[in-house]
Amino acid sequence: MNPKSKNKQTLMELKGVEQPKSIQKFDLRRTKTPTTEVFVQHIHKGNISYLSRAITLIESTHINHQEQAAEILQACLPLANNSIRIGITGVPGVGKSTFIEALGNYLIEQGKKVAVLAIDPSSSINKGSIMGDKTRMEELVKQKNAYIRPSPSGDSLGGVARKTREAIILCEAAGFDTIIVETVGVGQSETAVHSMVDFFVLLKLAGAGDELQGIKRGIMEMADAIVINKADGTNLKKAKLAKAEFERALHLYPPKISQWQPKVSTCSAIEHTGIIEVWDTILSYIELSKNNNYFQQKRDDQNKYWVIDTIDLELKNKFYNNPEVKKQLKAVLKKVQEFKLTPFEAAKKVLSKYYKKSGK
Amino acid sequence: MNPKSKNKQTLMELKGVEQPKSIQKFDLRRTKTPTTEVFVQHIHKGNISYLSRAITLIESTHINHQEQAAEILQACLPLANNSIRIGITGVPGVGKSTFIEALGNYLIEQGKKVAVLAIDPSSSINKGSIMGDKTRMEELVKQKNAYIRPSPSGDSLGGVARKTREAIILCEAAGFDTIIVETVGVGQSETAVHSMVDFFVLLKLAGAGDELQGIKRGIMEMADAIVINKADGTNLKKAKLAKAEFERALHLYPPKISQWQPKVSTCSAIEHTGIIEVWDTILSYIELSKNNNYFQQKRDDQNKYWVIDTIDLELKNKFYNNPEVKKQLKAVLKKVQEFKLTPFEAAKKVLSKYYKKSGK
Repeated sequence: MNPKSKNKQTLMELKGVEQPKSIQKFDLRRTKTPTTEVFVQHIHKGNISYLSRAITLIESTHINHQEQAAEILQACLPLANNSIRIGITGVPGVGKSTFIEALGNYLIEQGKKVAVLAIDPSSSINKGSIMGDKTRMEELVKQKNAYIRPSPSGDSLGGVARKTREAIILCEAAGFDTIIVETVGVGQSETAVHSMVDFFVLLKLAGAGDELQGIKRGIMEMADAIVINKADGTNLKKAKLAKAEFERALHLYPPKISQWQPKVSTCSAIEHTGIIEVWDTILSYIELSKNNNYFQQKRDDQNKYWVIDTIDLELKNKFYNNPEVKKQLKAVLKKVQEFKLTPFEAAKKVLSKYYKKSGK
Repeated sequence: MNPKSKNKQTLMELKGVEQPKSIQKFDLRRTKTPTTEVFVQHIHKGNISYLSRAITLIESTHINHQEQAAEILQACLPLANNSIRIGITGVPGVGKSTFIEALGNYLIEQGKKVAVLAIDPSSSINKGSIMGDKTRMEELVKQKNAYIRPSPSGDSLGGVARKTREAIILCEAAGFDTIIVETVGVGQSETAVHSMVDFFVLLKLAGAGDELQGIKRGIMEMADAIVINKADGTNLKKAKLAKAEFERALHLYPPKISQWQPKVSTCSAIEHTGIIEVWDTILSYIELSKNNNYFQQKRDDQNKYWVIDTIDLELKNKFYNNPEVKKQLKAVLKKVQEFKLTPFEAAKKVLSKYYKKSGK
């Protein structure tokens, strides 16, 4: 367990917050780690403790843990993949947690098993992270068929995203048939989430200033559904106007490869209205995309994306952590600053030395 | 010259468009290339033909051309760096060309030498590229002290951006003291442009739907000035309202490291109003940032960014063009698709083989 999550735990203890069982993390240093076989058996039976421990292994930076995590994932892979994966994004304050709680509870009533994961690189420094504040999903967290896991801590989005991506596999192997991945719609993490879910929901608020709150255009284009939350009370009229506006806007976009026409709807997560409609929309999409084979094609593309993404990350890590490169880089950067070397030539210098040594 | 730009030229010929001298490209296959020394001498004298030819060398994919381009750049580097570099972005239709023409002509009246470069990876496929249509800058293009160069063609943004970045150095060495870099504000290219200019102008339109036209929040944050264009006729009132709105919005952002408070203004590029004000704003910024040393610090940071960016690009090129990697990658992607390998393990497999061979 890295120091950050340690601190976080301590903070929660200090605050006297009792951790629900489903979000407990295990201290891997204290307990003896079971064998991979035992892990896989228990995960397959839907044992939440083992699921949590396995996800903790994924999140660990310890080499032994990483190796075992890889083994567990490998063994769980054939058991996974049978779920609907839903991404939820929206700026802080849009009501993501309340929405997920309402949707999650509805799905559990329908007999579903719901896992909620988060991908939010900023959450480790407690920057408006929703899931940091467990009380906001207090109903869902009590459900036997719900599993809620906060965002893994990590310095890079790539690392955090990969861990969440792998946690999905384990949750599916544990029998969760609906995976909800939550993200804060202000950074780069949406692209990562979009690359791990089947259906992407953008939560919006009606009314002035929301455009400037800053959902990026790219995210609008990614969305399979735009849901205008807090459509209640005096907000209702504004929400309906916003719905019409977004519908007009969406028609300007070119049709999606999936042939899906993104839907706009309103809801009130607090008053539990409009939630069923969102789920029906998701089901229509799944039906359409399974019929035209886009569903599997998209998952294949996503897998490919993750292979490439992991490689790119590792290529950079390997290079920049090389002591010779570090030294060289420092030297050329100085020359660039003194106008003695163009940035491009500087890069070439460091690269050629690196490749010469490695014989490439 | 790559096939794409060849096609483009042919298209222009078909249309009967006469190319102004300042944007002519040389066919490097036909003419004997002068020595690097001759290039540098003529560029330093402000010879536009040699400047154009040198930029064409930068854009060439031929290894000999690239080597000479690097030599020329290296030699021009001490002559460069004495200019104000301005980035202009905005969605298609916002009037960027008209604005640049108005600003450029004003600056030339003030005795400046103005180079206009573009960075737009989509321009090679003629997707609403402004500079593809030369007639839109017909006044500026005739000026002796103006140099207009369309976006280099290229498949990757990284490549296109690097070429533009290096063209700036040559233009500066040729005595251009104001460099305007134009981009279409809908993609990733703004980050690249932001990393090569001192001052970044976001052009906007007043009125409904502009939010949805899709300038990203990131771009708002990058902007040193927001200029609401087409503030004329019946649009004037809306433009003033938009100005007030953006001013309110900008105050929500944290202060910039430069201590610069981004300015919002209105202009009509067609009626030539508000242009002087934009230039005065730029001059105020330059004064402030030179006084607090941010100007040079930013250029140093930008140079560093380009070193790293070039390295990252090359690391990937080297890896993915390796025949062994290509083969391996194909094999593991198949296994991933068959749920026999997690994306992460697949990446590890390809990487470990690659590094084993290179002894790293």
